[in-house]
Amino acid sequence: MSVQVAVIMGSKSDWETMKHACEVLEELEIPYEKKVVSAHRTPDLMFRYAEEAEERGLRVIIAGAGGAAHLPGMVAAKTILPVIGVPVQSKALNGLDSLLSIVQMPGGIPVGAVAIGKAGAVNAGLLAAQIIGAFDPETRRRAQSRRDAIRDEVLEGSDEL
Amino acid sequence: MSVQVAVIMGSKSDWETMKHACEVLEELEIPYEKKVVSAHRTPDLMFRYAEEAEERGLRVIIAGAGGAAHLPGMVAAKTILPVIGVPVQSKALNGLDSLLSIVQMPGGIPVGAVAIGKAGAVNAGLLAAQIIGAFDPETRRRAQSRRDAIRDEVLEGSDEL
Amino acid sequence: MSVQVAVIMGSKSDWETMKHACEVLEELEIPYEKKVVSAHRTPDLMFRYAEEAEERGLRVIIAGAGGAAHLPGMVAAKTILPVIGVPVQSKALNGLDSLLSIVQMPGGIPVGAVAIGKAGAVNAGLLAAQIIGAFDPETRRRAQSRRDAIRDEVLEGSDEL
Amino acid sequence: MSVQVAVIMGSKSDWETMKHACEVLEELEIPYEKKVVSAHRTPDLMFRYAEEAEERGLRVIIAGAGGAAHLPGMVAAKTILPVIGVPVQSKALNGLDSLLSIVQMPGGIPVGAVAIGKAGAVNAGLLAAQIIGAFDPETRRRAQSRRDAIRDEVLEGSDEL
Amino acid sequence: MSVQVAVIMGSKSDWETMKHACEVLEELEIPYEKKVVSAHRTPDLMFRYAEEAEERGLRVIIAGAGGAAHLPGMVAAKTILPVIGVPVQSKALNGLDSLLSIVQMPGGIPVGAVAIGKAGAVNAGLLAAQIIGAFDPETRRRAQSRRDAIRDEVLEGSDEL
Amino acid sequence: MSVQVAVIMGSKSDWETMKHACEVLEELEIPYEKKVVSAHRTPDLMFRYAEEAEERGLRVIIAGAGGAAHLPGMVAAKTILPVIGVPVQSKALNGLDSLLSIVQMPGGIPVGAVAIGKAGAVNAGLLAAQIIGAFDPETRRRAQSRRDAIRDEVLEGSDEL
Amino acid sequence: MSVQVAVIMGSKSDWETMKHACEVLEELEIPYEKKVVSAHRTPDLMFRYAEEAEERGLRVIIAGAGGAAHLPGMVAAKTILPVIGVPVQSKALNGLDSLLSIVQMPGGIPVGAVAIGKAGAVNAGLLAAQIIGAFDPETRRRAQSRRDAIRDEVLEGSDEL
Amino acid sequence: MSVQVAVIMGSKSDWETMKHACEVLEELEIPYEKKVVSAHRTPDLMFRYAEEAEERGLRVIIAGAGGAAHLPGMVAAKTILPVIGVPVQSKALNGLDSLLSIVQMPGGIPVGAVAIGKAGAVNAGLLAAQIIGAFDPETRRRAQSRRDAIRDEVLEGSDEL
Repeated sequence: MSVQVAVIMGSKSDWETMKHACEVLEELEIPYEKKVVSAHRTPDLMFRYAEEAEERGLRVIIAGAGGAAHLPGMVAAKTILPVIGVPVQSKALNGLDSLLSIVQMPGGIPVGAVAIGKAGAVNAGLLAAQIIGAFDPETRRRAQSRRDAIRDEVLEGSDEL
Repeated sequence: MSVQVAVIMGSKSDWETMKHACEVLEELEIPYEKKVVSAHRTPDLMFRYAEEAEERGLRVIIAGAGGAAHLPGMVAAKTILPVIGVPVQSKALNGLDSLLSIVQMPGGIPVGAVAIGKAGAVNAGLLAAQIIGAFDPETRRRAQSRRDAIRDEVLEGSDEL
Repeated sequence: MSVQVAVIMGSKSDWETMKHACEVLEELEIPYEKKVVSAHRTPDLMFRYAEEAEERGLRVIIAGAGGAAHLPGMVAAKTILPVIGVPVQSKALNGLDSLLSIVQMPGGIPVGAVAIGKAGAVNAGLLAAQIIGAFDPETRRRAQSRRDAIRDEVLEGSDEL
Repeated sequence: MSVQVAVIMGSKSDWETMKHACEVLEELEIPYEKKVVSAHRTPDLMFRYAEEAEERGLRVIIAGAGGAAHLPGMVAAKTILPVIGVPVQSKALNGLDSLLSIVQMPGGIPVGAVAIGKAGAVNAGLLAAQIIGAFDPETRRRAQSRRDAIRDEVLEGSDEL
Repeated sequence: MSVQVAVIMGSKSDWETMKHACEVLEELEIPYEKKVVSAHRTPDLMFRYAEEAEERGLRVIIAGAGGAAHLPGMVAAKTILPVIGVPVQSKALNGLDSLLSIVQMPGGIPVGAVAIGKAGAVNAGLLAAQIIGAFDPETRRRAQSRRDAIRDEVLEGSDEL
Repeated sequence: MSVQVAVIMGSKSDWETMKHACEVLEELEIPYEKKVVSAHRTPDLMFRYAEEAEERGLRVIIAGAGGAAHLPGMVAAKTILPVIGVPVQSKALNGLDSLLSIVQMPGGIPVGAVAIGKAGAVNAGLLAAQIIGAFDPETRRRAQSRRDAIRDEVLEGSDEL
Repeated sequence: MSVQVAVIMGSKSDWETMKHACEVLEELEIPYEKKVVSAHRTPDLMFRYAEEAEERGLRVIIAGAGGAAHLPGMVAAKTILPVIGVPVQSKALNGLDSLLSIVQMPGGIPVGAVAIGKAGAVNAGLLAAQIIGAFDPETRRRAQSRRDAIRDEVLEGSDEL
Repeated sequence: MSVQVAVIMGSKSDWETMKHACEVLEELEIPYEKKVVSAHRTPDLMFRYAEEAEERGLRVIIAGAGGAAHLPGMVAAKTILPVIGVPVQSKALNGLDSLLSIVQMPGGIPVGAVAIGKAGAVNAGLLAAQIIGAFDPETRRRAQSRRDAIRDEVLEGSDEL
């Protein structure tokens, strides 16, 4: 299978958060690529990257950014592929700025936002997998297995407090 | 084509918001169904509905709710299909409560959140279309056409202020 | 006396907070049980647990959760017993998300929310005791004694700054 | 049955909100009384009222207030009965101030807070009923019936959008 | 001169903040007393203390508290002396809850709020001094001197960066 | 008695709020003056006004402003008289910006802030009266009478809901 | 003089706000142009427009947008001209989202943000004028005159309340 | 070239943040001066400094402050030069108070605000450079070079995660 998911982020420092999306994709055996693409510092690269994503056969783009987090929304403006935005926790405002910058998109150009920080990155990977799984039974099966495993883990430890 | 997308909402009063998701789906000729399913008032219906969604052939679930908006996250917990959450604008806190209740999901169970209110509902419809379009060229073409039309509308009126 | 109060929480990591509820219940000699029940990772267990709580003779359920904290509200939707929700302090938003997800319940399904974090957990234990105490003089007496002791502690140390 | 629940509020203007608690109590046939008791303007009345509540046979106190909403917490400081706090929607900050003033109680003196405004008042009435119902099967039955009726209402109208 | 200012606080742990008010009062040679008086844990002491403040010859009361910070407002409700409220920084919400609980008083019972934390405590001491200074030239002179000294300190170091 | 209190405000549009402070001062027979003094549009007037306040025999300055509300803090920087700040409700942020701009003063230059909007203006008038009353028995008596009247009003209407 | 300032906005509906910037520029006789340029709906136009601004001889770009307001930041990423961002008041979050999306830019790509809504638009026009005025005495003189007029207006009406 | 930019700050402790503005100015070879000027502790110095800035030949003033951050707005009120405000991260509210105090200026007196903390200080330096660069090709060239270098840095490391 060719690369299905792109994991991009606005800065190298976002990797600490975004690597959790990559780990999930690896675990679920979904081919992906990862790249630093800054909306503000490399706007032309961002546009070219977003423009070419569809013809390169990608299915989903995961974009993480913090503060005035424009990357997910701008990529979404340049591609018809579904875009998942991960609000990276910012220093002063703890990611509330990242979240609002990503989620409050105007009607016409959608971004699907997940939680601030690590949990959001994990879920971005899972949501990408579930999107692919909606059309690919094998991926769906793998996503379901991961979920069953998590459930069993909780069930087994449920009374051990 | 069978029903591809479900548009569910926690209360009849959410329809004013959620109808905008339905309008987009109709415009893009994506078969959908709509239903009031309350996490709090009809929890068993919600669970059954979420459990059966996959085998009924649905691809995406759009769930709108306001306040302590548990519907999107609980449906997501009961299905492996991708779930898009629409934060309905609440009375006292203007939908900030709805947004945080929907988007701050723990790692493991993803929901893709869109903007508060009407813009979010429109975008939920579009994101569902783009998800389907990632695997169906005809839907992708329709979504792209809608987007081109919006672009042209802006371009034409751009200097008429 | 059979088990009167259940202390449940969405994740093992909530135990650091929720143990304070348990300590209060022990101190006041109220029989209780404790369990990890995740709304999102073990939804079926959660429903079953909530459904059976009444017939098992429980009087009050204390539920703690963080982030998109759906556990208290969903348990409340499945039982007619009074539910007390404890917002666990979350990483990015410091528990404001937990608080709003718990307290902003729609009319029809009540949850009584307490403060974010440790103080809230302590008070959840006390509120459960006071609820039982409203019908059981002995429990009321114990709750009153604890309160008197706290008062005396303040009074004695009041001028020692 | 003697008066079981007190519905008090900080100002006459809170009645528009708090009447919804009273309506629920009437519907569920729970004897109650209602009164304006201001923490700030009638502090002595408030203390006397709270002090006598237990010996007068009350089971639960519902207290509504807005802004720097001290009534629920101060009543809770003066009685061992369970206190439910209703944050009345304030003018400038939409009840966020009311909510935080009510819910962020220090460890030792619990208040169970419900949602801001009308939904919270409805739920305060229901939570009081469920507290009584935890010890009185007849009240529990009535609360369950009301809930079943609400569920059926949603179920019947679920597809009529 | 008899005791002019009372510095009270809701908990011993508030001393780290409130001692800064005391230091200012000492520096300006204003006789003061300090005491832990908890609105929630020692409500009767609080009422008695507030009631007697006027006849004991106090001029200003400084009250510090955190979270659902009811102490300043309740003391204000029980005395006609001016009350200055210091919002102590709380753990989860960083003192935003303390601030709103103190400052959003209803019309009729005023509290003058200062900044969250240490700066607020310093300023509470200064504001008390300036209130006394409005009627006592010697105190006013001392407050002015302190201010001049601070100004000169800034002026001298202004270019040393 | 000469003018004791100044009521100043940043803009004519603040009068709707600030008149409530004036009404209280009139009611309590405290000589006052009122004036528009803008920190941003008439900075020199503001400085001169603040500088001369002390020698003109004023006792307290009440300053109201909205948005980036610099008036109270800047006047406080230029006078040793006590300054009470009234956060006027702003359009977009409902006065939260006004409140934080007024209350979060750095250590050294105190402002006593009251509630946002009308209630705050009423209380600014009362706080000024209570400050004067701390040194003038007649004013204190009048402030106490007003408070007693408000209390009686609540007591009489307490059961008429 | 050629066109010095561009006033662009993300949507026609922003005109109600942004026209106030244009009025100021007209008043100060600064040649300007105005245009709808949407970051999300016309991204290519936006990039081309920003790229050409410098060579077209513009000095300052004023960009207004609401919600996930990416226009100012993205234009700033594509031009070395100074960019002033105007947060348009949004429906649900009153422009707090617009403000954070505009102001929280990462180090490297600056945007100067002004207040939410009309006051911000007025000030964007003035700030552009003051920037030009820093290098053009005639424009500076005009800006100063406007300011003097506003000051005089306040001074004259200062006592007419 | 004479001094073009002033970097002022309300307190010595702001230097940790504001030095980043100075570093950028040095890097771009823009003559600047730096100084502690406190709105609250040295108001007369602040006024004199702002008044003389224009005739001293300065082009831009960068002013950083935290909490009730009045420095940028008050300097703006006293000069017709463009003022850039840097919200220094405050202790309790993380700079949200600083940001709102700086950005929410009333119509008539503009301040251009940048991000909270270090990123904002960097960008204040850059924005000052870009303002000068709009009229000075050499400065513009230097600013563009810095930006190109940053872009290349991202491009080179883009795939090294």
